Order: sequence, then C-alpha cells, then structure tokens
Amino acid sequence: MNTVLTNLIDSVRPADLDAMRRARERQAQLTKPTGSLGELEALSVRLAGVFGSETPHPRGVAVLVAAGDHGVAREGVSAYPPEVTPAMVANFLVETPWGRGGAAVSALARSTGTRVYVMDAGVNAELPEHPDLVGAALRRGTHNLRREAAMTPEETEALILAGAALANRAIDEGADLIIPGELGIGNTTAAAALTARLLNLGPAEVTGRGTGVDDDRLRHKVEVVRAALARTDATDPLTALAEFGGFEIAAMLGMMLAAAARRRAIILDGFVEGSAALVGAALRPALRDFLFPAGECAEVGHRAQLEVLNLKPLFHLGLRLGEGTGGVLAAPLLLAAAACLREMRTFEEASVPT
Amino acid sequence: MNTVLTNLIDSVRPADLDAMRRARERQAQLTKPTGSLGELEALSVRLAGVFGSETPHPRGVAVLVAAGDHGVAREGVSAYPPEVTPAMVANFLVETPWGRGGAAVSALARSTGTRVYVMDAGVNAELPEHPDLVGAALRRGTHNLRREAAMTPEETEALILAGAALANRAIDEGADLIIPGELGIGNTTAAAALTARLLNLGPAEVTGRGTGVDDDRLRHKVEVVRAALARTDATDPLTALAEFGGFEIAAMLGMMLAAAARRRAIILDGFVEGSAALVGAALRPALRDFLFPAGECAEVGHRAQLEVLNLKPLFHLGLRLGEGTGGVLAAPLLLAAAACLREMRTFEEASVPT
Repeated sequence: MNTVLTNLIDSVRPADLDAMRRARERQAQLTKPTGSLGELEALSVRLAGVFGSETPHPRGVAVLVAAGDHGVAREGVSAYPPEVTPAMVANFLVETPWGRGGAAVSALARSTGTRVYVMDAGVNAELPEHPDLVGAALRRGTHNLRREAAMTPEETEALILAGAALANRAIDEGADLIIPGELGIGNTTAAAALTARLLNLGPAEVTGRGTGVDDDRLRHKVEVVRAALARTDATDPLTALAEFGGFEIAAMLGMMLAAAARRRAIILDGFVEGSAALVGAALRPALRDFLFPAGECAEVGHRAQLEVLNLKPLFHLGLRLGEGTGGVLAAPLLLAAAACLREMRTFEEASVPT
Repeated sequence: MNTVLTNLIDSVRPADLDAMRRARERQAQLTKPTGSLGELEALSVRLAGVFGSETPHPRGVAVLVAAGDHGVAREGVSAYPPEVTPAMVANFLVETPWGRGGAAVSALARSTGTRVYVMDAGVNAELPEHPDLVGAALRRGTHNLRREAAMTPEETEALILAGAALANRAIDEGADLIIPGELGIGNTTAAAALTARLLNLGPAEVTGRGTGVDDDRLRHKVEVVRAALARTDATDPLTALAEFGGFEIAAMLGMMLAAAARRRAIILDGFVEGSAALVGAALRPALRDFLFPAGECAEVGHRAQLEVLNLKPLFHLGLRLGEGTGGVLAAPLLLAAAACLREMRTFEEASVPT
C-alpha cells in the first residue's frame, strides 16, 4: 500500500468523547422535556463528537457523485443498458431552467441547498470537458468481476486518493456534511459481492433488484455474484475491493476517509455507498464515528450493512435510486439536530419553571 | 353555527384528481427507474393534487404555534406546572444571538428556512405586547374539562376563525406549506378526550405520557379522561371540541380549514394537532386531501389518528415535544418531493436510453 494511503487511513481518529459528554449534559438543560426530541438528540450528540464541540455548527452540504462503469454489466445483471451511465452524467451537468442538472439528485440538491460535485471515476464513454466534471478515470469501466479482478491494486489506490481529493476540495469550498453518491450500471452487483465477502453472507442475502430487474434476472444476478465469490477467496478489504470493484466505490471510500480525517460528518446513503463504508470500517473502525445514516434503502443487504456499522436509518421512504439522493434528503435533519443543540436556550437562560 | 364558519368549511374541496393523474404520468417519464424514489413519488403526486399542477411549486413554509392553557392542568395531569406555557411563549419571542426564539421550534425553523408565527389563543398570563405575537385570547385558559365544558360554542367558533385568519395571513405573506403547532400544559389530556370520543376508543388507548408523566400520574390522567368522557355524551365534532377544549386546538382546526380552502398543503405534526385534524375531517372529509403527515410521535393514540386519516408517517424519530417541531422537520422532504416532480428531466428530454 502506498504511504499516502496509509497515512490517510491512519489519520482517521475516533470522535471526541468529551464533547459528546458535554453535549449530552447540554441536551438535558435545553427548554424541552428530556428526550422529547427523540433520535434528534442522539444525532446531535454524535455531531458534537465529530465536530469536537457541544454546539456543533456544520456549514455547507455537498454531495459528491462518482460515476463508473462495470465490466460485469455485459453479464446482463441490470435492468438498464450500460449506455445509461454516460447519459446520466450528462444529465447531472446539463443546464435546465431550474439550474444545473436534470437528475433526481440535482432537483433534491437545489431544494435543500446542497452543492453537487460530479466525478468521472471510469465511465465507458468519452465525456465532454466540463468545469463541474472532475476527471479521474483511468479506464472506461472495470473488468468483468465474474471472470477476473475488476481493478488492479494500483487502480484501486489511485481511485481512493482521487475520491479523497474531491472530498478535500468540497470541504475547502465550505462543506461540513459530505454525502458520497454514485452512479454506475452494474454497481449493485459489485456492491453485493463486496458486502457478501466482508460480512460473510451468502449471495442471495445481499443481491437485490438494483434499478429494478425481474425475478429471472435477479436469479441470474445472484449466480453472477456466487461465481465472483467462488473465483477469489480474498478477504483483505482492499484486495476484495479490487477484485469486485468498482472505480466509484473506491472513490467513495476515499471521500469517507478524507472527510473523517478532517473531522467532517459523512451521510451514508444506500447499498453501494454502504459497501464502500464496510471497506473503510474494516480498515479503520473509527470511521464509523463519522458515518450518519440516511434512510434505509430498498436494496436487500442494506440492513445488514447498517447493523454491522451500528447505524439506525433516519427514515424508511423506500428509496432505491442511488446518486446520493437519500443522503441529500437526510442532510436537513442533521443540520436541524445540530441547530437545536446549538441554538436552543437552557431552562435557566429562559427562566422556564421545571 | 355562524355562517362565516359554515362557509369556511364548505369551501374545502377535494384535491385535483386530474393534476394527480398527470403527475403520475410525469413521474413514470422522469430520469430514474420507476418507483425508485419510493414514498417521495406518492408525496409528489399528492402535492400535485393540492396545488392543481403536475409541476407543483410550493414556496415558503410557516409554522403557526398556538398557545393556550387548560383548566384541567389543575388536576395534576402534566409533568410541568401551567406557568410553563407563558414562559415558553416568551421563549418563542426572545431575541437570541441566532435570531428570534430560543425554543426547539425556533432553532429548527431557522435551520430549515421556516417562518414562525406565535398566537396567544388563551394563555393564563398577561403576555407582553410583541409585534410577532398574535393576540386571540378570549380568556386565560379553558375551564376544567373534567368538571364542565372547556369552552362555550361561541368561544370555539371564535378561535377557529382566529386560527383561519392567521393561516390566511401566513399564506398572504408567502407560505404554501402550513404547519399548525401548539403549546399548552395539559393539552394532551384534552386531545386524548377528543380523540377517544371521535374515534370511539377507550381512555387508555389514547392517553399518553405527554411531556413525560410517570406511571402513577399516567393512571390518574387516564381516569381524568375517563371522567370527562362520562360527563358528556356529545359526539358532534364541534360540540366535542367545545366540551374538551382547548383554545389552541380550535385555532389549529381553523388553520387547517383555511389552508385547505386556499389549497395549500398542511403538515400534520403530533398527537394534539391530530385531534384538531380529526374534528376537521369529521366536518369535511375532503380536508384529508390537504394533510401531509410528519413523523409518528411517541404519544399513544397518534397511530390511531393517522390510520383514520389514512396518512403514513414520514419518519419515526420518536419526537414528543409538540410546537410543530415534527412538521418543521418534514417540510424539507415535501419541498424535495415537489422539486423532483417539477425539475427532473424526462428520459426523452435527457436522451437517456431505457
């Protein structure tokens, strides 16, 4: 492993337990019955631990959408053709009457004041030059994980560092809540193989319908995951990531490591993001202190990921789109939790009898 | 019933079914797998029905917090003394380093861009003149619902109309999402009696811990609700509302009727708000078309209300504070749902292969 990556992993340190203790004490003094803000109170205490303050004040929110193609798409594991990946990247970048981007994440981000960054992590097309498209592609899509390693170890490390660089840029440009997001036809197959290997689960327990395959194709997808797992017995997290891919999953891992190293909160969206988080938590358990779940996504296997990461989803809206959409929806809840802890008066300040 | 109120009730008309049909067709064409935005898609279609457009564009959000005291508080049904009600009204109005208001709803509203209106619907104290406090009090708190009717029919109607006037003002000042909120020591007791009567449930099924009473006080609270239900057999919705109170519940009913009459969306927060909605839905079933649930609150009986109103909560954060806090948290999700329907491109517009 190259030393830059080793140093990045080592720089992830646990949350600030003393700030969390102070935040818990402060919550008990705020002008409301104790516990009456429910899960919002626990969220606010975790944010205190991330930002090292009992009055955390996260500023901007950014969603970083990494797009990559997957050799395994040619096995027919998706309801959509691989040409969707570059077309959707264009859809993220297009100018519309409402602003930049015509995808779901674009609309949600505008609605919630979230900044969108888009990364070409390895899309199988010549993409146009665009000031808002971060080029990080080494190849036009991974190898077919059913037949061979999806990525080389060197490619894996390079994409992790590219993701870290983008997270650092977003932080430098004002983001304190980082939402890794993804796009890539075939990527729930890669995420399923990775999740199965890291959690020691069977292929059927982690392989879902992705963008919406039918029963026959789901059975086929399970067999593809089974074959991939039989092909390699790698259990080392980074080796497993290289074996199954993909480029955008490696990039999201890098985003998470960099955000945690700089002590920013990471909102963890769906199943593909979860597979990157599993690699990260295996490399450095303290990463979990910086992960905040969005909703539970409809993809089978997401719940197992969240259980291992000890995260409880904020909502159950049945999202299964990816792009970081669930994370963007969760961001206002996290900002609100921090606002209560920071801005509410105490019983003493407000002279409210108790 | 006075004719102004009759006219208000009559002016609530069902949602626009044709706009909902067009919204459903549009959802199927947007650049995402059908159904992949889960509940957000159903929410967006309901918003299309409210606003009469397949591209609904709600502007501002307002939370209207009505405060009132309850004669039943002297029965010892709350964990807090009645003096908390005026102290918390002052807490809504105080200037802080962060802006106006030091309560939970103040912090949440600042965080989400929601405007706060505060109404004195009948607080048991001389409240200071304040440009942001809407005076609508007829008396300093209701009569004790255990012993006698909490309000007269005339008071009930007057408070409904005062609530309607405040909603109309908020709409005139830019709000398209209206969140009725409440504050009043003792008001979960009134809401429990009202809910039991309108849903024909027993007192134990609808009486909860409110701001946090212990087991002994909860048993006592159930007996108070039982005695109130035995005192009167009124089943007419407005008579039941007058019998059990309170002033702020009547005001919230007026807010809902006015918002629905002007075809704005209403975000329905917790259990006390739910009791007002039950009265409104009994008066005019079409009101339900305009109600959007926030989270499920921790108060027993809230689920029964939502079932009758055919509403599915958006999250399960265990809030039990009132003040409209859950509604303020839900608002960004509704705005986001509308944004997707309005701003996403179609597959055809984006030339994405399917």
